[in-house]
Amino acid sequence: MTQKTINIGIVGGTGYTGVELLRLLAQHPNAQLTAITSRSEAGMPVADMFPNLRGWIDLKFVEPAAAKLDQCDLVFFATPNGIAMKDTPALVHAGVRVIDVAADFRIKDIAEWERWYNMKHACPDLVAEAVYGLPEVNRDKIANARIVANPGCYPTAVQLGFLPLVEAGVVDIQHLIADAKSGVSGAGRKAEVHTLLAEAADNFKAYGVPGHRHLPEITQGLTQMAGKAVSLVFTPHLTPMIRGIHATLYAQITKDVDLQSLYEKRYANEPFVDVMPAGSHPDTRSVRGANMCRIAVHRPQGGDTAVVLSVIDNLVKGAAGQAVQNMNIMFGLPETTGLRHVALLP
Amino acid sequence: MTQKTINIGIVGGTGYTGVELLRLLAQHPNAQLTAITSRSEAGMPVADMFPNLRGWIDLKFVEPAAAKLDQCDLVFFATPNGIAMKDTPALVHAGVRVIDVAADFRIKDIAEWERWYNMKHACPDLVAEAVYGLPEVNRDKIANARIVANPGCYPTAVQLGFLPLVEAGVVDIQHLIADAKSGVSGAGRKAEVHTLLAEAADNFKAYGVPGHRHLPEITQGLTQMAGKAVSLVFTPHLTPMIRGIHATLYAQITKDVDLQSLYEKRYANEPFVDVMPAGSHPDTRSVRGANMCRIAVHRPQGGDTAVVLSVIDNLVKGAAGQAVQNMNIMFGLPETTGLRHVALLP
Amino acid sequence: MTQKTINIGIVGGTGYTGVELLRLLAQHPNAQLTAITSRSEAGMPVADMFPNLRGWIDLKFVEPAAAKLDQCDLVFFATPNGIAMKDTPALVHAGVRVIDVAADFRIKDIAEWERWYNMKHACPDLVAEAVYGLPEVNRDKIANARIVANPGCYPTAVQLGFLPLVEAGVVDIQHLIADAKSGVSGAGRKAEVHTLLAEAADNFKAYGVPGHRHLPEITQGLTQMAGKAVSLVFTPHLTPMIRGIHATLYAQITKDVDLQSLYEKRYANEPFVDVMPAGSHPDTRSVRGANMCRIAVHRPQGGDTAVVLSVIDNLVKGAAGQAVQNMNIMFGLPETTGLRHVALLP
Amino acid sequence: MTQKTINIGIVGGTGYTGVELLRLLAQHPNAQLTAITSRSEAGMPVADMFPNLRGWIDLKFVEPAAAKLDQCDLVFFATPNGIAMKDTPALVHAGVRVIDVAADFRIKDIAEWERWYNMKHACPDLVAEAVYGLPEVNRDKIANARIVANPGCYPTAVQLGFLPLVEAGVVDIQHLIADAKSGVSGAGRKAEVHTLLAEAADNFKAYGVPGHRHLPEITQGLTQMAGKAVSLVFTPHLTPMIRGIHATLYAQITKDVDLQSLYEKRYANEPFVDVMPAGSHPDTRSVRGANMCRIAVHRPQGGDTAVVLSVIDNLVKGAAGQAVQNMNIMFGLPETTGLRHVALLP
Repeated sequence: MTQKTINIGIVGGTGYTGVELLRLLAQHPNAQLTAITSRSEAGMPVADMFPNLRGWIDLKFVEPAAAKLDQCDLVFFATPNGIAMKDTPALVHAGVRVIDVAADFRIKDIAEWERWYNMKHACPDLVAEAVYGLPEVNRDKIANARIVANPGCYPTAVQLGFLPLVEAGVVDIQHLIADAKSGVSGAGRKAEVHTLLAEAADNFKAYGVPGHRHLPEITQGLTQMAGKAVSLVFTPHLTPMIRGIHATLYAQITKDVDLQSLYEKRYANEPFVDVMPAGSHPDTRSVRGANMCRIAVHRPQGGDTAVVLSVIDNLVKGAAGQAVQNMNIMFGLPETTGLRHVALLP
Repeated sequence: MTQKTINIGIVGGTGYTGVELLRLLAQHPNAQLTAITSRSEAGMPVADMFPNLRGWIDLKFVEPAAAKLDQCDLVFFATPNGIAMKDTPALVHAGVRVIDVAADFRIKDIAEWERWYNMKHACPDLVAEAVYGLPEVNRDKIANARIVANPGCYPTAVQLGFLPLVEAGVVDIQHLIADAKSGVSGAGRKAEVHTLLAEAADNFKAYGVPGHRHLPEITQGLTQMAGKAVSLVFTPHLTPMIRGIHATLYAQITKDVDLQSLYEKRYANEPFVDVMPAGSHPDTRSVRGANMCRIAVHRPQGGDTAVVLSVIDNLVKGAAGQAVQNMNIMFGLPETTGLRHVALLP
Repeated sequence: MTQKTINIGIVGGTGYTGVELLRLLAQHPNAQLTAITSRSEAGMPVADMFPNLRGWIDLKFVEPAAAKLDQCDLVFFATPNGIAMKDTPALVHAGVRVIDVAADFRIKDIAEWERWYNMKHACPDLVAEAVYGLPEVNRDKIANARIVANPGCYPTAVQLGFLPLVEAGVVDIQHLIADAKSGVSGAGRKAEVHTLLAEAADNFKAYGVPGHRHLPEITQGLTQMAGKAVSLVFTPHLTPMIRGIHATLYAQITKDVDLQSLYEKRYANEPFVDVMPAGSHPDTRSVRGANMCRIAVHRPQGGDTAVVLSVIDNLVKGAAGQAVQNMNIMFGLPETTGLRHVALLP
Repeated sequence: MTQKTINIGIVGGTGYTGVELLRLLAQHPNAQLTAITSRSEAGMPVADMFPNLRGWIDLKFVEPAAAKLDQCDLVFFATPNGIAMKDTPALVHAGVRVIDVAADFRIKDIAEWERWYNMKHACPDLVAEAVYGLPEVNRDKIANARIVANPGCYPTAVQLGFLPLVEAGVVDIQHLIADAKSGVSGAGRKAEVHTLLAEAADNFKAYGVPGHRHLPEITQGLTQMAGKAVSLVFTPHLTPMIRGIHATLYAQITKDVDLQSLYEKRYANEPFVDVMPAGSHPDTRSVRGANMCRIAVHRPQGGDTAVVLSVIDNLVKGAAGQAVQNMNIMFGLPETTGLRHVALLP
């Protein structure tokens, strides 16, 4: 039996999602990396920028025009928002499948997307076709998709945390609260003052309380799960660590169920969702570097509020790892291929 | 005019509350430190344990028996829970006033206290007399108190954040949510595995979700403010920083009010509560080392949920600084004496 | 061809070296873990203590007596110093090979060992037989060893950094200086005040300047390389990070050579030593989680001082990874088996 | 008796040195802040950028042209290198005294300065006049200076650490080694990738090993102390903390002296240098926020190498605090005025 090989291009490999994709693909048995593009760094060996890849990745960054992406089987966009929507039509036309790790294809309501992302969408028709790449919800559609919109980091942690409650219809979906905390790598590898170590270390703050781009994405996903409109308060916070998202979720219980059992059943066959034993408090380091979402569900003092704790590594299950998981599904590989890593603890 | 001098003893000066009290009192114009006790470290110069105090504090730790605490004007207990309740009766009898920075006198319901703290209370009668030392609520009673129960760190941040809403009766007090994040110094200077740097750094987790000792303290305080029973979900989290608490508070609005104006009016004359401009996100470092609570209030998307952000330094406004504030009130000094420090940023 | 299986026992699996061994062995194709002992945690599932191992390790900690270690092919000691020396004689007698990740077999001079470790050695005869497990020096002897003394973390970084200079005889070996900085996990998973996050974060300090246990180990190794007595000043520092050692090494050049070429040649065939290009500054994160030592060599301002920068992950190349590398050598496996991990960056 | 008032202008108040100057001057009894300039932030209230200053500083940033700096008694330059040299001549001509916290006036050899700072100097004649503001060496000259060149952070820690040895002529000044570690705030409040938390946290690296701008400054200072040319290897490192420099210094002893006594005598009357007891290891947090240099001196194993540990807060004794100390000297105030702060620990 011959080993299947997927020829892969990456657009925009200089950010954290890019280097994390490279880390995972370098160790993936079916991945053949053919090109990594970067306008600003063309000509530089990838391993000069990311020395952890020395001995693993021999490629240099190339200009997009020189990358021959149309000859790939699959292209990942690890770019800022607004790039993938420009390049995807031609690629899809050339028979290349696309996974956008940015936000261009996540929101079905184009007007809503344009309001939050403050730009005009370049290919609204392809948004309709694109599949939202949350495998625990859309596995079958992902398998045949030409375009997969890889979910955001917060939306992954929040949706997986609320999913069993919302699907089962046992909570008040008009008053959901998601209090989420992210490590600083979630802001990307951009030179900005507020994510300098001297600003963000030994410090904690909320941001975007009046509104954050991930709010419409989460609301869209939960609404689809519920089958009716969901209303959510979403409060993101910056926490002084590199990787990790911890979402603390609150919902008013409207129907009495065994929460622990509800979660265990819903995720019984999911390789990358781990429902912890009752009473647990998952910590983000337990998923550091691993494509895993660990969840615990509580009902404090037996009251009418469910409290769900959901942790992921924002760069893995929240970005590059989930992208590789989607790739595996799209190309008919076992879903866990190349994604079996023990989290790095401590 | 002669300068008033307060003769002060500290019981248990080897923890973080102790060293922070020493830092503040060393620079306080009216404080005369006469004794610092420690059973385990008796004989050691204080500045050998805490070199930041070299040149400021010449005292050695002494055995409690040798400390002549009954000759002090004021004794602070910076001890583990369960110590102050044993020593306070004799001190009060000797005319010494007491500020307990631990939890022995905080909860009026003795049975409740004994359940959460898992020990028998040694002087229930004095609990009834003790004044809960939150100056923004109890300033007048503190002035004449023999015993002040200094509030816990979480309870300070959460109560000051909810206070205007609860006093004004404009939110559903049956479904309050306090999602609180603390730096690691809140756990004290005890050798424990879970607060090692290699465990707690680059990591984030909730703890005590089923129940935390600060829950009954917060509930008691909010209930007093509301004039009727309050129900609260309280979720503490450990965040990888040294100092700081960030409480993110959620309440369902039941009566339409201008939240910003409500907060500004309530705290207009408070020297140690700073209501930030509308739309702000206070960060914990903005109060690092300072006796200050900064608060911002939001109403995301104009919905029916109020989101309050409340930050303090857990060792200052959440412990030692508030204790000195109480001392100033008790001894008739201007309340800000010795507490005017600019927070250390970055 | 049948896959070779090594039956492995681990004594003392509750520390950081233990969990790191478990992480590596869980993903090693030839490792069959049969027992993990812990007196204090016997009966607890390993994955309850280290949730990153959920789904990977099903074993519970067992009492040493119940572990049947004498039926293993190999036993790792991931214990405090002084344990391995007691249990090793019986194991070796039973035909079990031993890798001690602690210090019991590292120092050949028994009196010297007893002075630094402050205890009487239990089996001096086996010390003579034991092989010091630095593969880049002792590969052939390791292959046939019954007992391998796995090097300390500082000694690995310092010896690999100095090795080419000292072997080539081009520096003054009477005045070597090793200024080394370690992450806090190097102190182990012990409850101690000085490694609490609130003590060690946002802080930097030297320790053990008058003398550190790794000094005689380094001196012994360098002396063997040089063929004559070496004199070293060794200054360890605690740096506020979890993993990583950065050794900055200084030597006076006595013979003019091309330093870059010297290093590249010496390590040309070493899979786990990476000589960086001239002018590089390796960072510790470039080896986080990876069994790799990255080295850069400088000659500032063309003067007579060589400055060598040597980085490792103290838990991998400085402990568990090197132990697995030694295991591979001892059991005739390709040396990189189970040790090909891309470092986690960021 | 009337209190002396110093009218002060600050050029460039948006960096870390700027905010730290503001913190110190806000609490200084003689300082009257009249203007803070910033081209990029003109019109913004200072306390909007630095919320720790809310209630302390009511000024807004102003355009330099609008600042009327020529009417000040003193102007601090907290600017990037190359600004002060342009504005200082006019100010000095107008009778305003100047403290440059940047590097424009530190190096007497203009050609050397121009090579390291890669620009042409605008006023070489004033460099000759300017006094290097290390009070422990130049106190008398500072008192009468029109222009004080405030020392760099590394140079302060390194020079104060070597000073007693070099002045006493007891070490080999041809082979001095300074291995220095800095917190990230030393790089300033500039948006750069390498100082992002996600890059610099949980990481350690050397930088500038081939050459760093502070090398000629240190060499110049030590040469002046020695009375003859000094040769130094200087290796700076970035350590994952906000504030603090730890310099570990190595010198070969050429004349036998009591090192502890040498240091204690040299610094006996210095208010801001603290010689720790023999055997100490000062940590950087012991000076966090304080204008203090703590030093310990060792002679490991009684050998011929002196090892000196010298710690400062890079933003205080390494920048703004030393600048205020110089101001006090220049204006005839007690040197410790406004600089008595207990370091923030933990």
